[in-house]
Amino acid sequence: MTTDRYTPAPEDKFSFGLWTVGWEGVDVFGPASRAPIDPVESVHRLAELGAAAVTFHDDDLLPDEGTREKTLERFEQALSDTGVVCEMVTTNLFSHPVFKEGGLTANNRQVRRYATAKVLRNIDLAAHLGAKTFVMWGGREGAEHGASKHIPAALDRMKDSLDLVCEYVIEQGYDMRFALEPKPNEPRGDILLPTIGHALALIGELEHPEMVGLNPEVGHEEMAGLNFAHGIAQAMWHDKLFHVDLNGQHGPRFDQDLRFGAGNLRGAFWTVDTLLGGGAGPAYDGYVHFDFKPPRAEAADGVWESARGCMRNYLILRERVQAFRSDPEVQAACEASGVLELLTPTREAGEPLSALREADYDVEGLAERSVAMEALDQLAMDHLLAAR
Amino acid sequence: MTTDRYTPAPEDKFSFGLWTVGWEGVDVFGPASRAPIDPVESVHRLAELGAAAVTFHDDDLLPDEGTREKTLERFEQALSDTGVVCEMVTTNLFSHPVFKEGGLTANNRQVRRYATAKVLRNIDLAAHLGAKTFVMWGGREGAEHGASKHIPAALDRMKDSLDLVCEYVIEQGYDMRFALEPKPNEPRGDILLPTIGHALALIGELEHPEMVGLNPEVGHEEMAGLNFAHGIAQAMWHDKLFHVDLNGQHGPRFDQDLRFGAGNLRGAFWTVDTLLGGGAGPAYDGYVHFDFKPPRAEAADGVWESARGCMRNYLILRERVQAFRSDPEVQAACEASGVLELLTPTREAGEPLSALREADYDVEGLAERSVAMEALDQLAMDHLLAAR
Amino acid sequence: MTTDRYTPAPEDKFSFGLWTVGWEGVDVFGPASRAPIDPVESVHRLAELGAAAVTFHDDDLLPDEGTREKTLERFEQALSDTGVVCEMVTTNLFSHPVFKEGGLTANNRQVRRYATAKVLRNIDLAAHLGAKTFVMWGGREGAEHGASKHIPAALDRMKDSLDLVCEYVIEQGYDMRFALEPKPNEPRGDILLPTIGHALALIGELEHPEMVGLNPEVGHEEMAGLNFAHGIAQAMWHDKLFHVDLNGQHGPRFDQDLRFGAGNLRGAFWTVDTLLGGGAGPAYDGYVHFDFKPPRAEAADGVWESARGCMRNYLILRERVQAFRSDPEVQAACEASGVLELLTPTREAGEPLSALREADYDVEGLAERSVAMEALDQLAMDHLLAAR
Amino acid sequence: MTTDRYTPAPEDKFSFGLWTVGWEGVDVFGPASRAPIDPVESVHRLAELGAAAVTFHDDDLLPDEGTREKTLERFEQALSDTGVVCEMVTTNLFSHPVFKEGGLTANNRQVRRYATAKVLRNIDLAAHLGAKTFVMWGGREGAEHGASKHIPAALDRMKDSLDLVCEYVIEQGYDMRFALEPKPNEPRGDILLPTIGHALALIGELEHPEMVGLNPEVGHEEMAGLNFAHGIAQAMWHDKLFHVDLNGQHGPRFDQDLRFGAGNLRGAFWTVDTLLGGGAGPAYDGYVHFDFKPPRAEAADGVWESARGCMRNYLILRERVQAFRSDPEVQAACEASGVLELLTPTREAGEPLSALREADYDVEGLAERSVAMEALDQLAMDHLLAAR
Repeated sequence: MTTDRYTPAPEDKFSFGLWTVGWEGVDVFGPASRAPIDPVESVHRLAELGAAAVTFHDDDLLPDEGTREKTLERFEQALSDTGVVCEMVTTNLFSHPVFKEGGLTANNRQVRRYATAKVLRNIDLAAHLGAKTFVMWGGREGAEHGASKHIPAALDRMKDSLDLVCEYVIEQGYDMRFALEPKPNEPRGDILLPTIGHALALIGELEHPEMVGLNPEVGHEEMAGLNFAHGIAQAMWHDKLFHVDLNGQHGPRFDQDLRFGAGNLRGAFWTVDTLLGGGAGPAYDGYVHFDFKPPRAEAADGVWESARGCMRNYLILRERVQAFRSDPEVQAACEASGVLELLTPTREAGEPLSALREADYDVEGLAERSVAMEALDQLAMDHLLAAR
Repeated sequence: MTTDRYTPAPEDKFSFGLWTVGWEGVDVFGPASRAPIDPVESVHRLAELGAAAVTFHDDDLLPDEGTREKTLERFEQALSDTGVVCEMVTTNLFSHPVFKEGGLTANNRQVRRYATAKVLRNIDLAAHLGAKTFVMWGGREGAEHGASKHIPAALDRMKDSLDLVCEYVIEQGYDMRFALEPKPNEPRGDILLPTIGHALALIGELEHPEMVGLNPEVGHEEMAGLNFAHGIAQAMWHDKLFHVDLNGQHGPRFDQDLRFGAGNLRGAFWTVDTLLGGGAGPAYDGYVHFDFKPPRAEAADGVWESARGCMRNYLILRERVQAFRSDPEVQAACEASGVLELLTPTREAGEPLSALREADYDVEGLAERSVAMEALDQLAMDHLLAAR
Repeated sequence: MTTDRYTPAPEDKFSFGLWTVGWEGVDVFGPASRAPIDPVESVHRLAELGAAAVTFHDDDLLPDEGTREKTLERFEQALSDTGVVCEMVTTNLFSHPVFKEGGLTANNRQVRRYATAKVLRNIDLAAHLGAKTFVMWGGREGAEHGASKHIPAALDRMKDSLDLVCEYVIEQGYDMRFALEPKPNEPRGDILLPTIGHALALIGELEHPEMVGLNPEVGHEEMAGLNFAHGIAQAMWHDKLFHVDLNGQHGPRFDQDLRFGAGNLRGAFWTVDTLLGGGAGPAYDGYVHFDFKPPRAEAADGVWESARGCMRNYLILRERVQAFRSDPEVQAACEASGVLELLTPTREAGEPLSALREADYDVEGLAERSVAMEALDQLAMDHLLAAR
Repeated sequence: MTTDRYTPAPEDKFSFGLWTVGWEGVDVFGPASRAPIDPVESVHRLAELGAAAVTFHDDDLLPDEGTREKTLERFEQALSDTGVVCEMVTTNLFSHPVFKEGGLTANNRQVRRYATAKVLRNIDLAAHLGAKTFVMWGGREGAEHGASKHIPAALDRMKDSLDLVCEYVIEQGYDMRFALEPKPNEPRGDILLPTIGHALALIGELEHPEMVGLNPEVGHEEMAGLNFAHGIAQAMWHDKLFHVDLNGQHGPRFDQDLRFGAGNLRGAFWTVDTLLGGGAGPAYDGYVHFDFKPPRAEAADGVWESARGCMRNYLILRERVQAFRSDPEVQAACEASGVLELLTPTREAGEPLSALREADYDVEGLAERSVAMEALDQLAMDHLLAAR
């Protein structure tokens, strides 16, 4: 492996789910195409590639009570040997058929109780491993049929569950925050909290809203045709971007989980820009987490190549975003488009509303003004493509 | 016109935008195919068809300062003559080219000031006409380019604007609430507050959140592939369904604005069900407002036929929903699916979290349980189609 | 099970894939939620429900060489016992990881040879069982990456394969036709021959175009936002609707494989109408084949309920279509919309082009004409909903 | 304007529709935001920017009989003064309300006759101007309602129309070919011949299939979620890529008509690659035609900036594609992925089918093979981004 300026280092804070490189290729149309990978191997390989951290669902690492202790010990040794940290943990409430009709919002109360218990046990594990972020993706929380799920009750149960896990973390004295991961559909026909917005709205109703934020995923928002950079910008505006899942997707279709950069490349550029502060705002400073799937056709070599590509593409895009934002011509173009004029409040300080209401406006003159946004956008394209 | 049990009456509270029947057929690919309709004629025709109310953008009714007074007088006379009320008013911040790059969140501050003034003047008109709901759809608030719009600043300006209009309503002593209308895209590449969720989240940050709710539109959510009934259920859960825009759409594509019932008919059934309380919740009691466009190919006859169809389809669906919810076999099927079991909290009252965490669960047994949701859904289909 | 006028009978020619009721619920996010069903049981249960025929992939029925003979014998006995026929057979070229990068168009030539051999062996089985239609769905024929698949070569190989299987059928003297099943994506990022149109175009290039037609699937076309009824109408216009796969889908998203009628119900009405001849054309007279998946949440009871619903919904819709087409008011409305005027050629017989070119046209008068299509469509809605 | 290696020259054969830079910004939600541009000015400005050709609909250039002769004279003078040629002409059968329900496939026969006459007259104009390609986009040929359009009759009429125009061209002795432009929807709910595939299939039924090919548009295929590069590759395979419309789009939503490169940038890279022959095939050698709309927010400066961007982005991408295809490491990666192995027929020349059927295959070994496609795709990314 040759190195160049796009070779990652731990300070880049790249993080990978064990389930990403560990995906064996099972889909609706066929069984596994790859052998399982020992999580210890994944830690070592990811460390060699330049990653700083790993994350996992309980079941990825510890599918089996019998081997739990031994596996955990080996895993912690691997972390220790490599310097890789476990920055986030999440609970699998979607694979086992017990969750076939939901976990925390299953109609069946016993299922909900079991799901809750599984989360609580896993919070302890997360705390033990030092993870400070606990992601909750409710892949089976949803419905295919209009009458089968009482949505207000489901939202009540989701709120209860989040209040409950916050209470548990407080009770136990853990240093941990929760991050909800929205998704519009798949595997359920419609999933509860389908977008960044819906999850943000729910958080406003919680007992401990300060403990709960988001873990948005590129592909999930793009499956709804939404602009991911806009979505995380709104999450950051609410101070709720606790974590992020980067990958690639080709718009509304099945969940592709392509490596970051593949799919909507221009969107990836603006995503990195937004994470870095968008030219005029606070930056995201958490781990840069990839949640992708190496295509089923790939053998083991392709798995690591795909992981490598996620980080490489991020680093290329970061370089291009930084060049874009520091180019004086770009700054002049932003000026020409009035981009930062939007930071000025519309109303004068202390201005009576009647004055605003009655003022004269040069409507026709304003209608004819130049906005010069195509020019600005072409500068962005030039920087993205290193064509300047 | 023959009448039957699907013929509307004022107590059904059907309401139409003047711009719906008044759409002349201008689109990106061609000019008007129909002559303008005098709003007075629209009021009379809609009254004859059974509507209870009308709504309008300032520009629909009063495009011209010179004729404003006279037109308003004729309009009010038509309302008085027919008993039709004006239940909602909204401001057009998207047609005039002055708003080509946004209204309340345009980069240009003078444009924002003019947009604000236009809203304030129109709030006075709304109050004068007795409208208690003021809808805000920001069709040009958005962007086509990543760098051209600073999203956090745009959200700040949107918040400021909403705080400002609330302050104005309070200042003036009006009895009026605001309803935001989300839309993901079109005419802008990406629109601010693209879904019900994003708008709900913003409302949580306002100075007067109790004065601001939503006016969701069927087609707008479905353009993002989202389930409209789920969306308004969440809005109702937050107590924010202040108004509603019913129409039809065929999923992600251009904004079709079909008459209600056309497009996603099963979705329309669940929409009506949700508005009626979804079998176990509070019902929406506002006006049932249609925001559709008679297809450009239609001549005047088709305009009124299309309006008639909106109401007729609502009434058919309402009948079917009521039959569905009152059918004992349906109630038994809901029981079999555990629908109302979701109303029971997961945790016992006072139960320590440790008890929940440590309980035994029959995971395999639960995994094999019947959920019987296809059976329930087929009952819904039978009721929708009057096949029982 | 109660019976009513929507209870199917063998003369309705309903047919089911063994893989539909046999789907165990494996998806990308979880393992099986249901136990395997013995194909013999499926035949008996489907017969009881009123189906006339079954279909299968080789692997559904005969996953194992060791048990092949015995299983086949039991299967044929079940057919004989129930009177159910095997009307169609297809080959699984997508599940085994050998096909992870394609079957007939895999880059690897040995894989292509093996795929071809598997098809040939399965054609013999189909002929043995009396199936006259052989479906080919190339779910793994495609690509995720621009450079990885040479599309013209892939089309060459697809053509070769189809020419080859036609040659084999001719050589063996079988009475069998091939039906291609298009799909835009999933499981591959982009699949070769993504729509009805693309497959029709390919067929035009074959050595034996008369032996190859289509097996379009509702959900596959709707995943591309296309109108399924229009699609099969074009296929019928080319005389290429050899078979059909009915199911339900909610537009562009993952492949939902809902039971027929669920998803786009209005589309299902027009699908049935088109199969019946669309009021003025030849009807489809093949088997009415369902290719759906009972949702993963369902236990065994839900599987059969879902299968029952497919047929029931078809029969309800057929009744409604027939009532629609035989209603004199509908015929008058079609007349008003000029629907059958389209059957009249634009040019007079023998008319010189110069005469057509130079004639006078009342353009403005024609522009103002009524098309009355909303009225016609509302009549269709009334019939669909039995609201007349 | 500074020049660099991405500055276009006439030999690049860039071509623009007059309607692109001439779009005044009318959409469903608002009137014109820009003044009309004199076509003569457009010719001069496009020439200065480096374009080689222009195209137009009859109505773009000659909206008015009264000024026709004078306008035409001035236009031809502009062509002569600049060296710009008129390479393609098309007829507007979608703007005037006479075409509100279709042109060549309107139910109303007089409308169809008028549409045909308009095309014939415009063919004469095209021939007069030396255009060798005549594009036909049937934007209003379609339906919003299932019963309103008899699809087989519509296909008959479309075939008749194409046969007729071919006959006319032969009769007149013109050197001209026709290119159909597919689109799935907008402005009609569903448009006839919605994709490249459907149009290719129709062509196979014509009297003069050799005279009719395609003019595919990037955004139109992407509105259906289809892979544009794959689409034109299939069109080229059928020898039917007569012309091309380049622009940008963000998947299934309204028709955005972004400048080329904006929207799906990776798709644009593979589009250019395919036009250049895809590494192993014949190249497209026609004009590189842009069909985009400068965003409505832009003033006149943005119009030309947007046009400039289309060509610049094409030239950047062409450079990157050429570097990619000539990089030995890429060629090695293609080898590793077996890309060109697909050029080898599956069957040995003369091989009996029985031999192929009976051969032994190392299925498990083949299942485990490396396909190394992520590695190849990352090389493409590196070249696209100039990161090597």
